[in-house]
Amino acid sequence: MGKGEATREAILDEATRLASRVGLHGLTIGSLAAQARLSKSGLFAHFRSKESLQVQVLGHAAALFVEEVVRPALAAPRGEPRVRALFERWLAWCGDSLPGGCVFIFATSEFDDEPGPVRERVVRAQRDWMDAIATVFRTGITEGQFRADADPDQFANDLYGIILAYHHARRLLRDPQAERRARTALDRLLDDARPPRT
Amino acid sequence: MGKGEATREAILDEATRLASRVGLHGLTIGSLAAQARLSKSGLFAHFRSKESLQVQVLGHAAALFVEEVVRPALAAPRGEPRVRALFERWLAWCGDSLPGGCVFIFATSEFDDEPGPVRERVVRAQRDWMDAIATVFRTGITEGQFRADADPDQFANDLYGIILAYHHARRLLRDPQAERRARTALDRLLDDARPPRT
Repeated sequence: MGKGEATREAILDEATRLASRVGLHGLTIGSLAAQARLSKSGLFAHFRSKESLQVQVLGHAAALFVEEVVRPALAAPRGEPRVRALFERWLAWCGDSLPGGCVFIFATSEFDDEPGPVRERVVRAQRDWMDAIATVFRTGITEGQFRADADPDQFANDLYGIILAYHHARRLLRDPQAERRARTALDRLLDDARPPRT
Repeated sequence: MGKGEATREAILDEATRLASRVGLHGLTIGSLAAQARLSKSGLFAHFRSKESLQVQVLGHAAALFVEEVVRPALAAPRGEPRVRALFERWLAWCGDSLPGGCVFIFATSEFDDEPGPVRERVVRAQRDWMDAIATVFRTGITEGQFRADADPDQFANDLYGIILAYHHARRLLRDPQAERRARTALDRLLDDARPPRT
């Protein structure tokens, strides 16, 4: 990594942390310059426009997510252990990885009504992630741990709902039960996915 | 309702619709003045500060939510019919009531890290709503439709997760399956709440 590239990565790191708190709309070149102790003109040289900065922050966050959630989960054995590994890493991502919670959840609210490249980047990240969950779930069908007629896309949808409820309970309500409730919901979801006992 | 009060309500209606699209942070006195065709000074006379406007928008949205979701649901018979009525109205609220989706979901992302009266108003609305769901669920326990040991707060948490996943699938992903998936998830949640067959 050259010096210019390393600087750019360091700025994106700062920008992603800031965006988790104030959103991509709140992430102004001015506030980032202050946070990263750089000149505005220096930032403009790196990112050209606010929109380009927003798209690059999402790409940076997606890479971070792969590093912290996806890759370690894929190292777990196929089927239920891999689903659980993914879930645990995802909980940690929502809780502790960034100071203001999940960048993608915030960006969803900000950009769901705003057509353009930022919205497209959020949609792509979310579609990829839903597909990845469904794929991990499918390994459990192949291994015979989950019902053959279980719907992997429905599972991905329902698992995301559990995470969104957790994010809400933990970050907004500061509910000490948030984590326990999320695990209880996951256990129920997995129980329903198992083949009927014979 | 006096003329001043009627004007204030009309402005809050406009402001709530605007906030559903651009968030409470995006709701500036300037953008609202343009949208409502009023002078900025006229708006200041009504709301004094942006923060006061934000808090009043949340109060207005909460009243709208009671009108469109809570009150009609409470007219349904106790237990499962009431839970389902509440769910159907809530889906409609997320989908069609406001042009940009649910104001509270957006406000949660915006204010979860921002202490102050706006955050407190969001928290109060969400706590009240979780309590209301639990109370409605409890009527199903009393009626013997749900298990005596079912946890109403867990149910409220899980139901909220289904709605959040729906909001995401419908508003961000524009997934035509969003509604079907939400109903499938509800059916599963209710099945798990029923007493074991004897």
